[in-house]
Amino acid sequence: VIRVAVDAMGGDHAPDAVVAGALRAVREDPELEVVLVGRPERLDGLASGGGRISVEPAGDAIAEGAPPARSLARHPDAAVAVAMRLAAAGRADAAVSCGNTGAALVSAVHEVGLVPGVVRCAVGEALLGWAPRSLLIDLGPSVDVRPAHLVAFAHLGAAYHRAMWGTGAPSVAILSNGGEAGKGNAQVKEALPLLAASGLRFIGPIEGHDLAKGAADVVVCDGFVGNVLVKFCEGLADVLEGWWTEEGRGAPPARPLWSQFRVIEERGAPLLGVRRVVVLGHGRAGADQVAGVVRHAARLVRSDFLRLVGDAMADLQARAAVGAEA
Amino acid sequence: VIRVAVDAMGGDHAPDAVVAGALRAVREDPELEVVLVGRPERLDGLASGGGRISVEPAGDAIAEGAPPARSLARHPDAAVAVAMRLAAAGRADAAVSCGNTGAALVSAVHEVGLVPGVVRCAVGEALLGWAPRSLLIDLGPSVDVRPAHLVAFAHLGAAYHRAMWGTGAPSVAILSNGGEAGKGNAQVKEALPLLAASGLRFIGPIEGHDLAKGAADVVVCDGFVGNVLVKFCEGLADVLEGWWTEEGRGAPPARPLWSQFRVIEERGAPLLGVRRVVVLGHGRAGADQVAGVVRHAARLVRSDFLRLVGDAMADLQARAAVGAEA
Repeated sequence: VIRVAVDAMGGDHAPDAVVAGALRAVREDPELEVVLVGRPERLDGLASGGGRISVEPAGDAIAEGAPPARSLARHPDAAVAVAMRLAAAGRADAAVSCGNTGAALVSAVHEVGLVPGVVRCAVGEALLGWAPRSLLIDLGPSVDVRPAHLVAFAHLGAAYHRAMWGTGAPSVAILSNGGEAGKGNAQVKEALPLLAASGLRFIGPIEGHDLAKGAADVVVCDGFVGNVLVKFCEGLADVLEGWWTEEGRGAPPARPLWSQFRVIEERGAPLLGVRRVVVLGHGRAGADQVAGVVRHAARLVRSDFLRLVGDAMADLQARAAVGAEA
Repeated sequence: VIRVAVDAMGGDHAPDAVVAGALRAVREDPELEVVLVGRPERLDGLASGGGRISVEPAGDAIAEGAPPARSLARHPDAAVAVAMRLAAAGRADAAVSCGNTGAALVSAVHEVGLVPGVVRCAVGEALLGWAPRSLLIDLGPSVDVRPAHLVAFAHLGAAYHRAMWGTGAPSVAILSNGGEAGKGNAQVKEALPLLAASGLRFIGPIEGHDLAKGAADVVVCDGFVGNVLVKFCEGLADVLEGWWTEEGRGAPPARPLWSQFRVIEERGAPLLGVRRVVVLGHGRAGADQVAGVVRHAARLVRSDFLRLVGDAMADLQARAAVGAEA
């Protein structure tokens, strides 16, 4: 049986949509238990889902836009922090939050801790439904990274790819502005030889137009670029949905076009580099999306994800110790 | 009468598609003349378009992927260089190329020269058909820019916006990963106060999802980020066109969805910061797109574009001289 601690207070539609999504996930998966973390008086009535749903008392969410570290210091019992603590203490196998992303990151690093060898954590996920097994890393937390961090992201992403799809040697690329010699910004140019010597199956730089083709299993980039791209997709999804309606095209196709741009909204994205499974959902997640995020967390717990991440980082540290990537 | 020098040898479908596009533009606009620049033996038969088409002899294109500066040094008579020279000498009002972008940039800077005050030139254009008056700058030439360069891009973009649409005070934003205090990479954080003091109507940082909404008239970013975005759109256009066909949806809508992602393919993008009108087209441009690029160049010549750019940079230099942006 797998237990997922869910920050029931975080997200635009919390707690109702979060609770509804958690209940849905539990109904679909007989081996799943959910701990709803938050204000008991707001959860007790909602959580009548049988013995596999419990409530862990905690405070409110850290509000969207609030400064994460300072807010968490002032509210140590915030629901997101308590959810992370449950995972850290082994009282849950995974933690999930759709609230303030910065607060989820800070509390995950603080409560759960980093895997040995990890300096900067990262979020990685498929950007587009057309390329569902092509992971872009980092999508936000790590901005202004050093080239060595991009190498670590590549190792983390390869571990995630192996865990999800059993890939022997995932192909790894770096996002750049061209493949010819001399292309790339300073960060990319420095990272290229490090990635070539990383022991990973590095296929070189790829460009923006390669992303939709899923040209590599793992694509690394600075969190600034990744964040712009993932939010650009979000904006496109909204515009495409509006376009469909305005053109009066009637019922959407079986898999609506705009859902291709909402992979992360539908299943969340794991935080790579922390000691437990932590999956971050989108702030505007409804019940369906929350269920998807909880399922994603359970899938990662059942997989070899954490062992593969630990092995990858141990290997990276060993290589660094003998100067292979110096 | 406006004369546009067209690099007839550059582009995947040159010279045939380039010549056909130039002829189309001339047919549609009685005040337009085109000088086809390239190998006479490959152009003479094609260019039978009446007195408003002439041929200027030149060499071949610089091949796609060839190193620009070195190739141009070895082939000073390359068609793109000769086209730029015609514009520089006033024998043409504008130059247009769909060939090797790096070669077009290098020869434009070398032959035409920079506007006084410009340190790095930039390419700026609307990214999406849904936001046709929201210009993203830079889209490629200027990677690893200093924050002051982003301020110059904002001035260039505002001049371009004014020339095209008569906007009094175009709104200016910087692309970032969030609007809260502390967000942004190092480059953005340094640029924020400079933009606030620029004398432009600076509305602050915007995020990826704001791009499709056209949240600002001018959005500045490093050429690395802009290049990733513009190529990402290219890839999406291809995937969407394929999706439409596969879903068997029959005839495309009046304005096909994927054309929303092909603004730059359809009209090219001007090089901002050089002394003449230079418009760069897409390598895979067909005759329709080439005609669009030539029309775009003619439109800029007829507008106040060059005067507004000169004024903006003179103003920027004057402000710098009194320390307003130091």
